Amino acid sequence: MSRNIKMILEYEGTAYHGWQYQKNGISIQQTLSEAITSITGEIIMPIGAGRTDAGVHAKGQVATFITNSNIPSDKFANALNAKLPSNISVVSTEEVLPEFHPRKSAESKWYRYQIFQSVQRSALLVNRTWHISHPLHIERMKSAANMLIGTHNFHAFCTSGSSVKTYERTILSAQWSDIQGILCFDICGTGFLYNMVRILVGTMVEVGKGKRTLDSITELLNNGDRTKAGVTAPPEGLYLMKVYY
Amino acid sequence: MSRNIKMILEYEGTAYHGWQYQKNGISIQQTLSEAITSITGEIIMPIGAGRTDAGVHAKGQVATFITNSNIPSDKFANALNAKLPSNISVVSTEEVLPEFHPRKSAESKWYRYQIFQSVQRSALLVNRTWHISHPLHIERMKSAANMLIGTHNFHAFCTSGSSVKTYERTILSAQWSDIQGILCFDICGTGFLYNMVRILVGTMVEVGKGKRTLDSITELLNNGDRTKAGVTAPPEGLYLMKVYY
Repeated sequence: MSRNIKMILEYEGTAYHGWQYQKNGISIQQTLSEAITSITGEIIMPIGAGRTDAGVHAKGQVATFITNSNIPSDKFANALNAKLPSNISVVSTEEVLPEFHPRKSAESKWYRYQIFQSVQRSALLVNRTWHISHPLHIERMKSAANMLIGTHNFHAFCTSGSSVKTYERTILSAQWSDIQGILCFDICGTGFLYNMVRILVGTMVEVGKGKRTLDSITELLNNGDRTKAGVTAPPEGLYLMKVYY
Repeated sequence: MSRNIKMILEYEGTAYHGWQYQKNGISIQQTLSEAITSITGEIIMPIGAGRTDAGVHAKGQVATFITNSNIPSDKFANALNAKLPSNISVVSTEEVLPEFHPRKSAESKWYRYQIFQSVQRSALLVNRTWHISHPLHIERMKSAANMLIGTHNFHAFCTSGSSVKTYERTILSAQWSDIQGILCFDICGTGFLYNMVRILVGTMVEVGKGKRTLDSITELLNNGDRTKAGVTAPPEGLYLMKVYY
């Protein structure tokens, strides 16, 4: 009897070429696939809720796989953690309905981007945050985040080359806050374009540095000119926090 | 004109054989020494406020070195960070009086020990916390921490083999708290015996698991029997947070 198993995953993405399986580099997906094979004997490629790029982390990635093994659904977490390297962990596993699809069934996603603003770099936060030595005007960045909430055309905040039907996305919440000395940008939305969170962060940081006006954010949302948006923030600050169903 | 330069250091200790220079492994002290040599041309071994063991981290280690170079005192931080590997960072540098000694001048030290209590391990907290899957009775551990405050003979909480004049130490504060889902033990004292914080934590965890009574802590402080104390908690949860002068 085949079952659809849903996993909640945490990973430190530094050592991986991202979520997605690829021939020329170790991916999270492939590493998970090998761990599943080693405990079930089945050749299975798990399906993820979202592709994370090389260096991007996850606290709550969701993935599923179909299995015919007789391992109890909630015991997969223990069994997989025993096989996986220490930079990938399975938080929990459970059986879900056959029609549950981690990406298509998702209603919204929460991403966090972490910045460490300080004159000198931090040995404990390397690979986990974007280090910025330039002072940042946080209140201005908070105003910029506010402007993103709602349904907008995010064409300007998308890496070129990606093909999607529409660039309209709905942002449910977006805010900057200080958590234990780390500047965190939390954004929740029904969908995201390729590199969208990182380009939004890169653009808001330019606002925080005083190199860009708040009005320019409005212009980007109106004219969709991707050549006018800010830099793509580096991957190491980004975390897929949670997928909502 | 020689100057005494004080550094505040942060490091991720996983890759090192501890602070102290040794022939058979890379130490923080040696790595710093090489970075100082590369910018000053002088052969200098910095002096630290405290030896941290292999795998132990620091947010606020203090070290000094004497130099005849003409680099401005506050510029050493930038110059050293450019030479050091990413798992060691210099937070700041300043000139101090020649008689300032990072260990002898210290009035007290603050250590933090981090525990991640959860059924499954965490990919993002590996090497940074002690993962404990067994549930812990936090209130009982808080009571145990309270019992440590004051001047006591900590002979029972010291790795055997270390030779010191007295095992009496004064603990100024000791408490457990939940910080962003991580169970943190913060302890501040005028001095610490070898492995003292880790043995205290290992013993309190046994209290938290219900495997040891609170009274046994009183007994350990009274009879100093080191064979009756708990296990030594692993190094990866320990952080030297700050040295007070």
